[in-house]
Amino acid sequence: MALIVHKYGGTSMGSTERIRNVAKRVAKWHRAGHQMVVVPSAMSGETNRLLGLAKELAPSSHTTAYARELDMIAATGEQVSVGLLAIALQAEGLEAISYTGWQVPVRTDSSYTKARIESIDDQRVRADLDAGKVVIITGFQGIDGLGHITTLGRGGSDTSAVAIAAAMKAAECLIYTDVDGVYTTDPRIVPEARRLHTISFEEMLEMASLGSKVLQIRSVEFAGKYRVPLRVLSSFTPWDIPLDEEAKSGTLITFEEDENMEQAVVSGIAFNRDEAKITVMGVPDKPGIAYQILGAVADANIDVDVILQNVSHDGKTDFSFTVHRNDYAKTIDLLKEKVVPHLGANEVVGDAKICKVSIVGIGMRSHAGVASRMFRVLSEEGINIQMITTSEIKTSVVIDEKYMELAVRALHKAFDLDQDAA
Amino acid sequence: MALIVHKYGGTSMGSTERIRNVAKRVAKWHRAGHQMVVVPSAMSGETNRLLGLAKELAPSSHTTAYARELDMIAATGEQVSVGLLAIALQAEGLEAISYTGWQVPVRTDSSYTKARIESIDDQRVRADLDAGKVVIITGFQGIDGLGHITTLGRGGSDTSAVAIAAAMKAAECLIYTDVDGVYTTDPRIVPEARRLHTISFEEMLEMASLGSKVLQIRSVEFAGKYRVPLRVLSSFTPWDIPLDEEAKSGTLITFEEDENMEQAVVSGIAFNRDEAKITVMGVPDKPGIAYQILGAVADANIDVDVILQNVSHDGKTDFSFTVHRNDYAKTIDLLKEKVVPHLGANEVVGDAKICKVSIVGIGMRSHAGVASRMFRVLSEEGINIQMITTSEIKTSVVIDEKYMELAVRALHKAFDLDQDAA
Repeated sequence: MALIVHKYGGTSMGSTERIRNVAKRVAKWHRAGHQMVVVPSAMSGETNRLLGLAKELAPSSHTTAYARELDMIAATGEQVSVGLLAIALQAEGLEAISYTGWQVPVRTDSSYTKARIESIDDQRVRADLDAGKVVIITGFQGIDGLGHITTLGRGGSDTSAVAIAAAMKAAECLIYTDVDGVYTTDPRIVPEARRLHTISFEEMLEMASLGSKVLQIRSVEFAGKYRVPLRVLSSFTPWDIPLDEEAKSGTLITFEEDENMEQAVVSGIAFNRDEAKITVMGVPDKPGIAYQILGAVADANIDVDVILQNVSHDGKTDFSFTVHRNDYAKTIDLLKEKVVPHLGANEVVGDAKICKVSIVGIGMRSHAGVASRMFRVLSEEGINIQMITTSEIKTSVVIDEKYMELAVRALHKAFDLDQDAA
Repeated sequence: MALIVHKYGGTSMGSTERIRNVAKRVAKWHRAGHQMVVVPSAMSGETNRLLGLAKELAPSSHTTAYARELDMIAATGEQVSVGLLAIALQAEGLEAISYTGWQVPVRTDSSYTKARIESIDDQRVRADLDAGKVVIITGFQGIDGLGHITTLGRGGSDTSAVAIAAAMKAAECLIYTDVDGVYTTDPRIVPEARRLHTISFEEMLEMASLGSKVLQIRSVEFAGKYRVPLRVLSSFTPWDIPLDEEAKSGTLITFEEDENMEQAVVSGIAFNRDEAKITVMGVPDKPGIAYQILGAVADANIDVDVILQNVSHDGKTDFSFTVHRNDYAKTIDLLKEKVVPHLGANEVVGDAKICKVSIVGIGMRSHAGVASRMFRVLSEEGINIQMITTSEIKTSVVIDEKYMELAVRALHKAFDLDQDAA
């Protein structure tokens, strides 16, 4: 018997029929002797519907007062879900009770629409668990020091589930989602892509931030910080498969490098085709230049991903970075108007038809030559590398987007990711 | 400058366009110098949608735990409304903030789905009003001593608005609804029906309970108890009509009999065709009989309206009462099976094709002969009276339902209700 947290996404909660299936699955775990806490998302489409109504009425300037009301409205989607799931569990013959974030309470800061969890009181929930009840808690939301409702931003229910698991010292947090785990790469690109039985927390961070949109990145950070064993698994398996089988399915995100870890050097290939690259040419090589360029970009609320500056010659250098493709034209205009004239740079060039491909693996730390093997594979396929960045457990290249599928497939094969290592 | 409470029904909140109109109307009052508290209902159809989802998942036995979850779910409809209205007011350039029942807090007992308000803390709201903000508060809901969300039952937002007006000592509580006031009778039956400028609290209670479904009856009781001046008025007038004109429109429910009261003896004609009458014939005239009959009916959760027992002769009497027409067959069966055999009564007879017509007026208290004038009018129209009951300010008759329109029209004319007395 253990304390287990289940998290269900909006698709799993999308209809009363699906909610009934979630209830049956939770009931199976409860009957097996586990103490169960469940964190469901809003029914699919509901948060968009609510925020759509708010947007129609929105004032022209987006004040804190406005953001507070958005949270007031958006938080109701999860509140409906917890009530419905509690009722469905009662219909299964279990005792079940639902709580909103403010009832637990889940305390957050006052950054409405993107609040951060500060603390979670486990007393009330623990008392109910000890009394044999299943406890359902709203994801995505909390209460701030002023007694106002806050939300954690899109995908915040993953973070809520992990934070609750951490506060309750749960044995495991299971994230039921519409994929059955974390893959070596996107199976739509590489049919041989293989589900990983385990992945390290650091690798998961890199995979998530690079576009493997399985889990909200903040939830992975949270899991890492509090060492919450986290499992991503499918909500589409029949609810009545044996519990032992279900408990081992999906992908477990681990913190123990030596234990049960797959020994592959590279765990997965991530990619992202939503980026565009921009280069400011002939920048004088002197202090403050990077700040002058990127400060102006940041002030315009444009997020920057890769940043690259190579050594200079003749006192000039080229400064490159990537932005989201939607921000490409805006960024180019901004630089031409406000930055280049003051900088003494030569010109601004860019390309929106690029993509980023990364190999990710904790094994890279101790294996030399992984990056060079990547470059060789790309070279053999005739793919020109435009930019390179590296971190301890990842190497990323920017290439022409037309080569993306080819690069991903070639790398997947070259690093033996289609071979089951477990 | 005064503190004013506005309440808007679900139709007024039914779309973002309508919410924008509510915001413009509230802004008009605020700009005229009033402190404004607004209590909106859920968007029309929303509460039914939410409870429909819950019903699909409902357990077979309806426990307190189930009722608690229904309130968790249903309370979200109003929460969305207050957030949207606050945003619409911000777009009008006003400072506006919304609160749920638990945030105010509005404290209630723990009778989930039909809770009663126990107290309202006005501190937080008053601080915001003093800071120049418009405060929007969810109707229909509160928080109980255990920290659980409660709802007040259907139409509870009227009661919330009146209770908040009482707690805040508001100058007036304006209930904006889809009728433009209280009429002498239903204009669909009598085209000459006239809107009352004022009606006494007691008359309003009788009119409401007799089927003039303008206001939830509990809100009228609350207004009477705390002497909250209450006005029913139309939400369909253009928002930009002059405030002076709007402030005098509709019907004011008063507590001062001598001030500005219309002097008519009878204020209105109420009617109800949802009833059926039942008579237990030849009941022994001895103590405990009424209890034996109605106790069994009440145990079956059947509500009784009119109750009538006439003097006996030969030690036997006839005992009559009315129930909702939907309960007619069930009640007859129940009496035949469980009551009549033990009672020594002769038989049970009844009629589902009846209606009840009532004249209501505070002037009846001091004017003899009002009832006899009613009976004369009905007699002149050839309408047979089957049952009669009276209270201090109302006289009701049960007649064949086919005469209902005729009776209502004849009484409306006979008591000069088509003449404006103001």
